[in-house]
Amino acid sequence: MINWKNMTALDSYKKLKTTYPTSLKAALSGEAGAKRVHDYQLPMAGGLSYNYAAKRVDDQILADLCALAKEAQLSEKYQALLNGEIVNTGEKRRVLHQLTRGQQGASVEVDGVDKRAFYLEQLAKIEKFAGDVHSGKIVNEKGEPFTTVVQIGIGGSDLGPRALYLALENWAKAEGCFKMEARFISNVDPDDAVSVLNSIDVARSLFIVVSKSGTTLETLTNEAFVKNALLQKGLKPSCHMLAVTSETSPLAHSSEYLAAFFMDDFIGGRYSSSSAVGGAVLSLAFGPDVFKRFLSGAAEEDKLAACPDPLQNPDMLDALIGVYERNVMGLPTTAILPYSQALSRFPAHLQQLDMESNGKSVNRFGESIDYPTGPIIFGEPGTNGQHSFYQLLHQGTDVVPLQFIGFGENQTGVDVEIQSSTSQKKLCANVVAQIMAFALGKQNDNPNKAFAGERPSSIIYGKRLTPEALGALLAHFENKVMFQGFVWNINSFDQEGVQLGKVLAKKVLAHDTDGALKAYSELFDI
Amino acid sequence: MINWKNMTALDSYKKLKTTYPTSLKAALSGEAGAKRVHDYQLPMAGGLSYNYAAKRVDDQILADLCALAKEAQLSEKYQALLNGEIVNTGEKRRVLHQLTRGQQGASVEVDGVDKRAFYLEQLAKIEKFAGDVHSGKIVNEKGEPFTTVVQIGIGGSDLGPRALYLALENWAKAEGCFKMEARFISNVDPDDAVSVLNSIDVARSLFIVVSKSGTTLETLTNEAFVKNALLQKGLKPSCHMLAVTSETSPLAHSSEYLAAFFMDDFIGGRYSSSSAVGGAVLSLAFGPDVFKRFLSGAAEEDKLAACPDPLQNPDMLDALIGVYERNVMGLPTTAILPYSQALSRFPAHLQQLDMESNGKSVNRFGESIDYPTGPIIFGEPGTNGQHSFYQLLHQGTDVVPLQFIGFGENQTGVDVEIQSSTSQKKLCANVVAQIMAFALGKQNDNPNKAFAGERPSSIIYGKRLTPEALGALLAHFENKVMFQGFVWNINSFDQEGVQLGKVLAKKVLAHDTDGALKAYSELFDI
Repeated sequence: MINWKNMTALDSYKKLKTTYPTSLKAALSGEAGAKRVHDYQLPMAGGLSYNYAAKRVDDQILADLCALAKEAQLSEKYQALLNGEIVNTGEKRRVLHQLTRGQQGASVEVDGVDKRAFYLEQLAKIEKFAGDVHSGKIVNEKGEPFTTVVQIGIGGSDLGPRALYLALENWAKAEGCFKMEARFISNVDPDDAVSVLNSIDVARSLFIVVSKSGTTLETLTNEAFVKNALLQKGLKPSCHMLAVTSETSPLAHSSEYLAAFFMDDFIGGRYSSSSAVGGAVLSLAFGPDVFKRFLSGAAEEDKLAACPDPLQNPDMLDALIGVYERNVMGLPTTAILPYSQALSRFPAHLQQLDMESNGKSVNRFGESIDYPTGPIIFGEPGTNGQHSFYQLLHQGTDVVPLQFIGFGENQTGVDVEIQSSTSQKKLCANVVAQIMAFALGKQNDNPNKAFAGERPSSIIYGKRLTPEALGALLAHFENKVMFQGFVWNINSFDQEGVQLGKVLAKKVLAHDTDGALKAYSELFDI
Repeated sequence: MINWKNMTALDSYKKLKTTYPTSLKAALSGEAGAKRVHDYQLPMAGGLSYNYAAKRVDDQILADLCALAKEAQLSEKYQALLNGEIVNTGEKRRVLHQLTRGQQGASVEVDGVDKRAFYLEQLAKIEKFAGDVHSGKIVNEKGEPFTTVVQIGIGGSDLGPRALYLALENWAKAEGCFKMEARFISNVDPDDAVSVLNSIDVARSLFIVVSKSGTTLETLTNEAFVKNALLQKGLKPSCHMLAVTSETSPLAHSSEYLAAFFMDDFIGGRYSSSSAVGGAVLSLAFGPDVFKRFLSGAAEEDKLAACPDPLQNPDMLDALIGVYERNVMGLPTTAILPYSQALSRFPAHLQQLDMESNGKSVNRFGESIDYPTGPIIFGEPGTNGQHSFYQLLHQGTDVVPLQFIGFGENQTGVDVEIQSSTSQKKLCANVVAQIMAFALGKQNDNPNKAFAGERPSSIIYGKRLTPEALGALLAHFENKVMFQGFVWNINSFDQEGVQLGKVLAKKVLAHDTDGALKAYSELFDI
C-alpha cells in the first residue's frame, strides 16, 4: 500500500534534519580519503559511474538517507509508475516515458492498445522512414537525396533532442555513421527561423513539426514560416514536412505531411527525448541503430533505478543527496558542469527537466507545502566555466552543489600533445583538480587568496561519450528528478505554472487589456 | 575624500533593512498602475529604456536607495575609476575598459603613454587591417580573399565577443554590412577545435589568438591545434594567424603572426569586449564602422552612468535595486531573459561578468564580510524559457528576480502573420504578459493552478537591437556590476578564485599527487 506523505511528516526526515554535513577536508584527507574515492561510487549503465566521494555525507547520513528512501516508498512508487498507474495526478495521466525504451513493469493497456507495442511500432515506422531517406528511396521533388533535417519544436521538443544531437554529432562523424545535418527552430522570434532557413539548402531539407497537441503557438508559427519559404522556392511543403504529434492532434492524419510519427499524453514534453520526439530527428541524423543504442543505455539505467537499496541505485542516491543539500543544508541552486564540449547544451536540457518538473509549491493533493522543492539549475561546459563563473563557486558568499560529468577519451579521436600532455588529459586533469579545490580549499594568510573549501560535488564519469552512455546519462537525471518529486510529495509531471502567461499573452494580442498591462503593451506599440 | 566602507556600516543601509518590499499587486493595479509603468522608467543610450515598474520598490524605498548611493559615494568612486585611480586593489591596477570607448575622466598616462591614445591607436590598426582584408589587399597564400575569422580564446576572450557576434549577425546580414563569418574555439576539450576546423574552409580563414598574458593554457593548446591543421594542409600559419595580447606578452612581437593588436593590464578579460579583444573579430565580421557604432552606444551609456542621481542613472538604479533584492529581500539568484534570439548567448556573458566580478567574500582590504554579495546569474532567451524553467519561476518555492530584455522590431525584417499577428508581435505580447503574470499572479480555488505573484522583474526595451543598442546594453551591465561592487565594498576586478584549480591541475598533469587527488586522477587514467 503506497502512502503519499509530505516529506516533513516522515520520521526519517526529522532524523536527517538533526545531522551535520560531513567535513570534506577530514573525509578526503590521507589514505582514508583515497579509499573513500574508490568506495563512494556506483556503476551506472552505458559504462558510466557515479562518484559521490566529494558530497558532504558519511556512512551514517547515507544510512539515514536509505531510511528516508524506504519510508518515502521510493521504490514502490517507481514500480507503480512503471505499472502504468496514474502517477501524474494533476493531469490524471500515466507516466510512460520509461516504456519508450523498455518493458519493466506490467504491460500497460490504454483503450485497448498495448502501449509498449505502440511505442515500438512508432520506432519501427521511424526506422523504415529513415532507412528510406538514407537509401535514397525517399527524395525531394527533383529526385535529389535529403541532406538536412530541421526540428521545429519548443521546450521539450527542442531542448532534449538538440542537446542529444550535439552530444553525438562529433561521435557519429568519427564513427562514420553520420547521415544528415540537423538544425533546430524553436523561438517565436522570427529571426530564429529566418536565420536557420538562410543557412541551409531548403530544397534538400526535411522539416519535422513537433507538437503533442498540434496547437503550440511557437511551433505552428514557425511551421508557417517554413512552408512560406518552401512555397517561395517553388517547392511542395508536403514533400518536405513530417509531424511528430499525438494521434488525436490536427497534425496526425493530414496529407500535408510526408509522414507522421506518434507520441501520446503519457509522455511529458521534457521526458520525450526517447520517444518519437527525439527518435525521428536522431534516427535521421545518425541512423536508427544509433538511436536504438541510445535507448538501450537509457533502458539499462531505468533497470538500475528499480533497485530498492539506494546504495546500489545511482539515480535514487543522487536524488537523496540532492534532497539533503536542498532541505538539510539549505542550498537553493545546483550547477551542471560537463567537461565535454559535446554536452554544451545538456545543462539547458536538465534545466528544463528539473525546474519544470520540481519547481512546485503544492503537493500531489494540491495543498501548499512549507519546504523548498526543486533547485535552480544552471551550467556550462568545463573548462570554459572555469574562466567564467567558477570565481563565485570558489569564493562567493553562497555555496552551490556541483554535478561534474567527464570522460577519459574525446569523441573525435583527434588530439595534440603540448607540454607533454594531450588536450584530453588537460581536460581530465582540470575536472579532477576542481573537485579537490572545491572540497579542500586552501588556507592563505591573504584572505583574498584563501579558499574555504567544503563545497560539495559529485562526478559522473566514463571512458567515452557513446550513445549508450548518453542514454544512461539522460535516464539518470530523469529518474533522479522523479525520485526527488516522490520525496517532496509533489507531482513532477504537470506544469500548471506555464498557463497564466499564455492566457495574458492572448489578451495582449487581442487588445483585451487595461491598466498596467495596457501600459506595458504600449511600450512595444502592441 | 573617498571612504571605502562595508555596506553594513552605512546608516542608509541600516535604514533600508527596516523597509518592507512594495506589493506589486497594489502598485500595478488600476490607473495608478498604468501611471507607474510610465513613470518608473529611465532613458538609456542606444534608444533603450530601463523600466522598473515591476520591481518591489516605491518612492520611499527609492529615496532610501538614493541615500545609500550617496553615502556609499558611488558617483565619486566611478569618477575615481574614470580618472585612472588604482581601483583594482587586489592586482594594484587601474580599471580602464570605459576608456576604450570614450574619454570621460582625466587623461590617464602610464609609463609615458596616454592610454586613450593607445586604445585609439589599436582601433585604428584594426580598422586598417580589416579594411585591407575586406578590400582583398590582404589575402591568403593563393591570393584568395579570407571568408571566415575564428577567435581562439576562453572566458572573457570568448563569451563577450561571441555573444556580441551572435547579437549582430542577422542584423548585419539584413543591413548588407556582413563581411565574414565568425567562429569561436574556446574549450581545451579537443573536440571543440576539431569540430570548428572541420566546419570551415581553413585555407580561407583568419585565426585570432586572444590571450592578454600570452600564456592561457586552453588558448595556446588550441592555437597549436589550428597551426597543425594549417600545416597539414600545406598552409603557412603566419599568413593566417593574428594575435590580440598585451605588448609585453610572448605573442606581441612575433613573426608568427600576420598582425598583433594590443590590450593591457587595465582591461579585465570580462570587460574586454570593447577593446581589441572584441574589436578585431567584430570589425572583421561586420566592418569597423559597425564596431565603432557599438562603441558609441557604450560610451553614451557610460556618460549616463556618471550622473550622481540614481533616478536619472539607469545603471546605478539597476545596481541599487539589485542590492535591495539581494540584501534586504534575501534573493540569491537573478535570471536574464532576453526576448530576442540574437541575444541567445548574452546571458552566458553576463553570467561571467557578474559572477566573476562580484562572487567575492572579502572586502577591498582583504577582510571577510558577513553579507551576501554577487548573485547567481542564469538565463535563456524567451519565449524558449517559457517552455522550460519558467514553471519554477512562477510556482517554485524560491523567488528569482528577473531581467527581461525586448525589442519592438526584429532584426531581419522578415516576418509572417498568423492568427492576425506577426511572430514579432507574439514575442512582444509574451514578454509583456510574463511581466504581469509574475507581478500579479492569479488566485484559483485549485492551489495547483494558483499563482502567488509578487515576483519582481524589470525590462530593458528598445525599438530594435542595433550596434548602438548593443553597446548600451553591454555598458549598462558592466556599470551595474561595478556599482554593486562599490556598494558591497568588494574588488570587482580581480579573480583570485580561479587560481587554486589551475595549480592543482598542473600537479595532476605532473603526477605530483597523493591521497584523494591521486585516486580521482586514476578514475581518468591520468
